[in-house]
Amino acid sequence: MPTIDLKPSAESCWELWQAVRAKRPLVHCITNFVSMDIMANVLLAAGCSPAMAHSLDEVEAFVGISSALLVNMGTLSPEWVAAKKLAARRAVELGKPWVLDPVGCGATPVRTASCLQLLDCRPTVVRGNASEILALAGAAGSGVRGVDSTAASRDALEAAKQLAVAHKCIVAVSGEVDYVTDGTAVVGVRNGHELLTLITAAGCSLTALIAAFVTAAPQQPLLATAHALAVFGLAAEEGLRLAPRPGPGSLRVALLDMLHLMDQATVKAGARIEVMA
Amino acid sequence: MPTIDLKPSAESCWELWQAVRAKRPLVHCITNFVSMDIMANVLLAAGCSPAMAHSLDEVEAFVGISSALLVNMGTLSPEWVAAKKLAARRAVELGKPWVLDPVGCGATPVRTASCLQLLDCRPTVVRGNASEILALAGAAGSGVRGVDSTAASRDALEAAKQLAVAHKCIVAVSGEVDYVTDGTAVVGVRNGHELLTLITAAGCSLTALIAAFVTAAPQQPLLATAHALAVFGLAAEEGLRLAPRPGPGSLRVALLDMLHLMDQATVKAGARIEVMA
Amino acid sequence: MPTIDLKPSAESCWELWQAVRAKRPLVHCITNFVSMDIMANVLLAAGCSPAMAHSLDEVEAFVGISSALLVNMGTLSPEWVAAKKLAARRAVELGKPWVLDPVGCGATPVRTASCLQLLDCRPTVVRGNASEILALAGAAGSGVRGVDSTAASRDALEAAKQLAVAHKCIVAVSGEVDYVTDGTAVVGVRNGHELLTLITAAGCSLTALIAAFVTAAPQQPLLATAHALAVFGLAAEEGLRLAPRPGPGSLRVALLDMLHLMDQATVKAGARIEVMA
Repeated sequence: MPTIDLKPSAESCWELWQAVRAKRPLVHCITNFVSMDIMANVLLAAGCSPAMAHSLDEVEAFVGISSALLVNMGTLSPEWVAAKKLAARRAVELGKPWVLDPVGCGATPVRTASCLQLLDCRPTVVRGNASEILALAGAAGSGVRGVDSTAASRDALEAAKQLAVAHKCIVAVSGEVDYVTDGTAVVGVRNGHELLTLITAAGCSLTALIAAFVTAAPQQPLLATAHALAVFGLAAEEGLRLAPRPGPGSLRVALLDMLHLMDQATVKAGARIEVMA
Repeated sequence: MPTIDLKPSAESCWELWQAVRAKRPLVHCITNFVSMDIMANVLLAAGCSPAMAHSLDEVEAFVGISSALLVNMGTLSPEWVAAKKLAARRAVELGKPWVLDPVGCGATPVRTASCLQLLDCRPTVVRGNASEILALAGAAGSGVRGVDSTAASRDALEAAKQLAVAHKCIVAVSGEVDYVTDGTAVVGVRNGHELLTLITAAGCSLTALIAAFVTAAPQQPLLATAHALAVFGLAAEEGLRLAPRPGPGSLRVALLDMLHLMDQATVKAGARIEVMA
Repeated sequence: MPTIDLKPSAESCWELWQAVRAKRPLVHCITNFVSMDIMANVLLAAGCSPAMAHSLDEVEAFVGISSALLVNMGTLSPEWVAAKKLAARRAVELGKPWVLDPVGCGATPVRTASCLQLLDCRPTVVRGNASEILALAGAAGSGVRGVDSTAASRDALEAAKQLAVAHKCIVAVSGEVDYVTDGTAVVGVRNGHELLTLITAAGCSLTALIAAFVTAAPQQPLLATAHALAVFGLAAEEGLRLAPRPGPGSLRVALLDMLHLMDQATVKAGARIEVMA
């Protein structure tokens, strides 16, 4: 596979997505129970191959046959957290990208501590909402309300930058505008729709898609992340346009359809990625 | 938030729902694996905030930040049952409402025993189908067939009353007519559609919605429960009316849409709640 | 219930399905987390009754009240594998059919070993994709890529026959053409659509439907399996024909609708089952 040289552009977005489809990466997901169905369906619709495996005696072998790892902190328990750490360390050993979704970070002490333990396992990318990123960065420990965000994404940008620098990773903050940063550069993505927040695990699924996109541009995880955000958000916009009603049930169906059906012209006309700093 | 004075009426139904949306209660759900996706989506669509967390070391803290707790007995295991009891006791300590869904009570001795243990933790509301309520009340231990009801809701009304009196809780029996009782008063709800029984965990999700509704009228759990039943049932009726086909796949999509989109006029014209005793 | 004498025909297909609906078998499913929602919905839509229960202290009792058992090896862990073996042995003791879905067999050593342990528990039917059947038969241990098939179903026919003979069971290999064999006879099914492979756990759900169909023709598990494959595949074809878009989100909705709504004329005109050897 030729190396891709991504630009923060809609053109590049389509190009990367096609490279992902050509590669059909196996994304090993250790995720919360609520998200499993939609996450697997999002990956399949977008042209990737999902695998859910969490057993302590199997996760390292699964990382070995996968292209990337997704670790999501929802519905955690001690044994699952142990498996997540094992898998993350194996991914780093093997030089495979892994992406952390710190669901509900800040909601409880156990949750926050577990997220920090995973952060110490050197993720390639961290994706959360503003409250989660704020909590994870230690910039704020309050204001998190279950797994929904109570802060705007812009409020968490400084925390995201600090996190990115301190942990040498890419940090993405989802919101009305999505921000992606390596600590210095900031790329903004203006795709998506508010109704997505009424579909459970939409954000979790998006993080899995980021893992898939990074496999096709491993040298450019910042732009790969931004491109995944744009594709997912645009699929929601297009889906909503075609849905019979502006409801979360219809949007979920149409989102999956669009992740399979969106064409080059739509992506080139609709992806809104820009360098902000 | 001003106190709501509910009446068994469609007017009151809309008013309570709006109060729920204004409050956006965080409903902590410890539920079966099958139900997690649709339950979270039902809560989100209706204007609430779901959180699934089951770890023994985290459930008490989660109850602390939640408005209500939902405990569902499906796909049980010893560790999960322990977490459910811990969470339920914490809810009682903190004066927060909690709702029990005794899925499959009567199907196996372990199941029945576990349901009884939770019943002893003083739920605010219990919601089940007729067979489950009959089994739970000890009025009958047979006739339960997996998690589907084999008895009509009317058959379980006396058992429901006994249960309500003995355990000082509200008991709701779902069926063609839903009955809600505190042991003396009985309110009936005539919304819903038979096709709902072909959507897995529709009943489980409804119980979670009851938990949300009770948070907005904590002094009137009987009427809050009836109102939740009416809203959910009406959303199914309206959804079916708008669905392209009368199939369970389409109904599930439209149900979620309607929980987000139903307007005041529809609720006022369609909710069918009446005092029966 | 009168005994059914199945033929490899579309007529027979409808007749068996009606017998299944009349029986409304309770199918006890011990399956992976990803599949639970769609599997339960597929069984309900097709006229069966699902029950998910996995606890070591409850599975044997659940087998006792069920008509059939489905064991799926996805998202395995030591405790769940133990429960699966316990349930499978109980099913054999009670003379109830049980069906094995060796998800991801060959992907990791633990996975393959666990699948072989279940195979030793004498399943009535084994259903997998070509790679899984090849791995399970020991005909090949490589080439398995997560839970997706990388081999064509025809490539696994010999392995399927060997497996069927050695383990005295029916083996079904899913693919563009589905093959079902008892080691000697081979029946082919030409229903289904490629887009089904983009719906997570569609295959898992199909295996659960096989378990349901076998309950209504326990003396003819080979044909019952072929008939289940035809009904499921045809529901997907019909669903796709009616879906607003050829996407996996819409197909999933329409598939569930069609499993509820398909009529006799459609099944008789569309089921494509033939004796191949």
